[in-house]
Amino acid sequence: MSNIDDDRGSDENAAFDGSDIYADDGSVRSDFLMHVGAAIADRDTIYLRQHVAGLHASELGDLLEAIQAEQRLSLVSLLGKDFDLAALTEVDEAIRLDIVEHLPNEQIAEAIGEMDSDDAVYILEDLDQEDQEEILAKLPFTERVRLRRSLDYPESTAGRRMQTEFVAVPPFWTVGQTIDYMREDEDLPDSFTQIFVIDPTFKLLGAVDLDRVLRTKRSVKIDAIMRDTSHAIPAEMDQEEAAQLFEQYDLLSAAVVDDNGRLVGVLTIDDVVDVIQEEAEEDLLRLGGVGDEELSDTVGGASRSRIPWLFVNTVTAFISATVIGLFDATIQQIVALAILMPIVAGMGGNAGAQTMTVTVRALATRALDTHNAPRIIRREAGVGLLNGLVFGTFIGIVAGLWFQNVHIGGIIAAAMLINMIAAALAGILIPIVLDKSGADPAVSSAVFVTAVTDVIGFFSFLGLAAWWFNVA
Amino acid sequence: MSNIDDDRGSDENAAFDGSDIYADDGSVRSDFLMHVGAAIADRDTIYLRQHVAGLHASELGDLLEAIQAEQRLSLVSLLGKDFDLAALTEVDEAIRLDIVEHLPNEQIAEAIGEMDSDDAVYILEDLDQEDQEEILAKLPFTERVRLRRSLDYPESTAGRRMQTEFVAVPPFWTVGQTIDYMREDEDLPDSFTQIFVIDPTFKLLGAVDLDRVLRTKRSVKIDAIMRDTSHAIPAEMDQEEAAQLFEQYDLLSAAVVDDNGRLVGVLTIDDVVDVIQEEAEEDLLRLGGVGDEELSDTVGGASRSRIPWLFVNTVTAFISATVIGLFDATIQQIVALAILMPIVAGMGGNAGAQTMTVTVRALATRALDTHNAPRIIRREAGVGLLNGLVFGTFIGIVAGLWFQNVHIGGIIAAAMLINMIAAALAGILIPIVLDKSGADPAVSSAVFVTAVTDVIGFFSFLGLAAWWFNVA
Repeated sequence: MSNIDDDRGSDENAAFDGSDIYADDGSVRSDFLMHVGAAIADRDTIYLRQHVAGLHASELGDLLEAIQAEQRLSLVSLLGKDFDLAALTEVDEAIRLDIVEHLPNEQIAEAIGEMDSDDAVYILEDLDQEDQEEILAKLPFTERVRLRRSLDYPESTAGRRMQTEFVAVPPFWTVGQTIDYMREDEDLPDSFTQIFVIDPTFKLLGAVDLDRVLRTKRSVKIDAIMRDTSHAIPAEMDQEEAAQLFEQYDLLSAAVVDDNGRLVGVLTIDDVVDVIQEEAEEDLLRLGGVGDEELSDTVGGASRSRIPWLFVNTVTAFISATVIGLFDATIQQIVALAILMPIVAGMGGNAGAQTMTVTVRALATRALDTHNAPRIIRREAGVGLLNGLVFGTFIGIVAGLWFQNVHIGGIIAAAMLINMIAAALAGILIPIVLDKSGADPAVSSAVFVTAVTDVIGFFSFLGLAAWWFNVA
Repeated sequence: MSNIDDDRGSDENAAFDGSDIYADDGSVRSDFLMHVGAAIADRDTIYLRQHVAGLHASELGDLLEAIQAEQRLSLVSLLGKDFDLAALTEVDEAIRLDIVEHLPNEQIAEAIGEMDSDDAVYILEDLDQEDQEEILAKLPFTERVRLRRSLDYPESTAGRRMQTEFVAVPPFWTVGQTIDYMREDEDLPDSFTQIFVIDPTFKLLGAVDLDRVLRTKRSVKIDAIMRDTSHAIPAEMDQEEAAQLFEQYDLLSAAVVDDNGRLVGVLTIDDVVDVIQEEAEEDLLRLGGVGDEELSDTVGGASRSRIPWLFVNTVTAFISATVIGLFDATIQQIVALAILMPIVAGMGGNAGAQTMTVTVRALATRALDTHNAPRIIRREAGVGLLNGLVFGTFIGIVAGLWFQNVHIGGIIAAAMLINMIAAALAGILIPIVLDKSGADPAVSSAVFVTAVTDVIGFFSFLGLAAWWFNVA
């Protein structure tokens, strides 16, 4: 980040708030960490107030993640009221919970009162019921009601992610009145990009982007320039679905409405960006056989999150072993089969993983649907056939030369072709079937695909050999 | 999308521009496709102008992807000047190129003249030099210069992605003058969220968010309310790095400046969202062993994109086979080893894939850096040890019972433990080393990790058995 220009009247790197805390590779600079560590050890609150308290919330979050676990609580308590709790929305869940548990509820309540409601909800939702209630009880009435409303919506919905502060005006106001109201009202949100238009019951009538307001003469009525709020998002809508709307229609923010069409909040693009990141990360980790794991998890936590997948793999591995066991007599006579069989299974597994990755991603982005599914299935079968011919021939020749046996070369070539086609079909059909039946294809596709390619790989290769050489 | 509320004076689903083209699962509705298909066949331009020309660009893009390949060009030519070229920014590259190649350069030039410059560049950059020049030559001077400037920046930089239309005012203007200017100037961008402040040489001095302008009295000077433009992005900055800045500082848009700090454009969050999606997709596909592949690719295209990875896997598969070949005498005597050996290799491969997935993702999001790497490496080794003990014991017992042989149970348990630890270390160290040496860890980690777990799995299991039973 050192190459950010700051040209406000001075040289490069002049006043970029904290650009200096990062090294070129994007990690927090070591010398800064050393200074902070020394200041924590010395209880040097002057240094910390000067160099840490002023950081952007996301920079403070990065700093908290970079320092030692035992330094975190000291830093937070040394900063006292200068600690910006918004930084907690930027750190791993384990770190957030650890810090929040050690903070007095009074301090949390005070900080939450000053935060945007979406950040406040983000911190409150992880607390246990009792602490949540105690903190909410300390807040002013309107704020308490707003936060409770957000918390009442289920996790991962637009209602839980929305900000409850917004600017709303009646449709009969003029542009002039609206601008004057904004100039005088002290209680506006920190930043906003559109103004909503509501009736006296808070029913959403429309919205006006700020640039539209600025371009319009003062005498024009708001309802003459407001646009239709078709992208209003029901509060119960899943956050992922809401994110797709933002992406599709290039929205910056969108009204969130309740069952009766009443405006209850606004969902903004920065929250949506986080949702997009989370969803992409979730798919990637699930495909890799990892559950909801964070980098701050302990050995025990990480181990536990990976055991279920490994266990399922143990079961399928024994199934494949049983298939091999059917041909023990064949293997005993022709040991070359044991040497070559992992090639057939492994290549099928890789080809299946390729098709599966493409399919899972296409399902997640809704690029694969009922219209193009038949075409994509035919395409994958074609790719399987083509790559099966290519690698069957190549591996067949190499294996034939290795063991100086044309029969073995022919058998492995045929088995490769069979398994590559099976891999392609398993790689596309398994995720589609899982998706249709309501399961998350990212979670369990890999285990089924590998099971198919292992079983068919071993069975076709050993079976063909047993039949050809007539030993079983 | 059918659950989008539209409460503007009427009932649900009243006027949502095209919400009705989607079915519940997010795909384009079949009956709409049928009507469009029939209209194309009948050359019914009236239907198409009425129901297709008015769609949002992203909806038209989805429609283009959903219809048959041979219908696409007919639809575009039937719509003629009513075809919104912006839809081409929303479709697969193969489809975009196919349509653009068949459109007369005059029509492209005319459409590009009306587009936002970032969309225009997106379409122009894929064309060959000659067509590009011919189209640019047809554009008015200022527009041609702007687009050329964007196209001169390398692919995947902020300069290539930026929009060259923006609002900029001098610092000595008042809020009142600024608002009056916006009310009168016809040539403003379609939408914007901030106003830039520049000196007569276009050097960027600061920026003001629109809400700030609206909240401020008319007599206040712009330089009194402008904020520091520390987040200005150098035009040569990689788009991924720019996206990280947007995420970290929750930006909606940011100024793009040239080497001399002169304002050349503005990067907006909607482009950044696309970048984030693309990068996440790239990592996922690469981890799955798939190159830059699109759903519209042909069998040949998809096959070619997957062959390199499969070929590398063939090589490593033969290496593992050679390792097995070292122990052919052992296998011939104890055929149970051939039956069980894929379990050891496969479980190691899965455990390695888990660690590798977590590592690649953490490197991509910069969550893993030099500060926490030692801790994470220790953690992964711990997870490998723990899961090695768990699954070694379990698989050892099952295998021992299966073959009624306690020695085989003990040998597979020991081999499992060794391979799980090797898998953990390979899974974290290989991506880190690749990343440090400047390679993309998502591309090649998997092949090395699998090679390690296969070789160590077969070698430890068969080697231990050969030594214990004293047959080799």
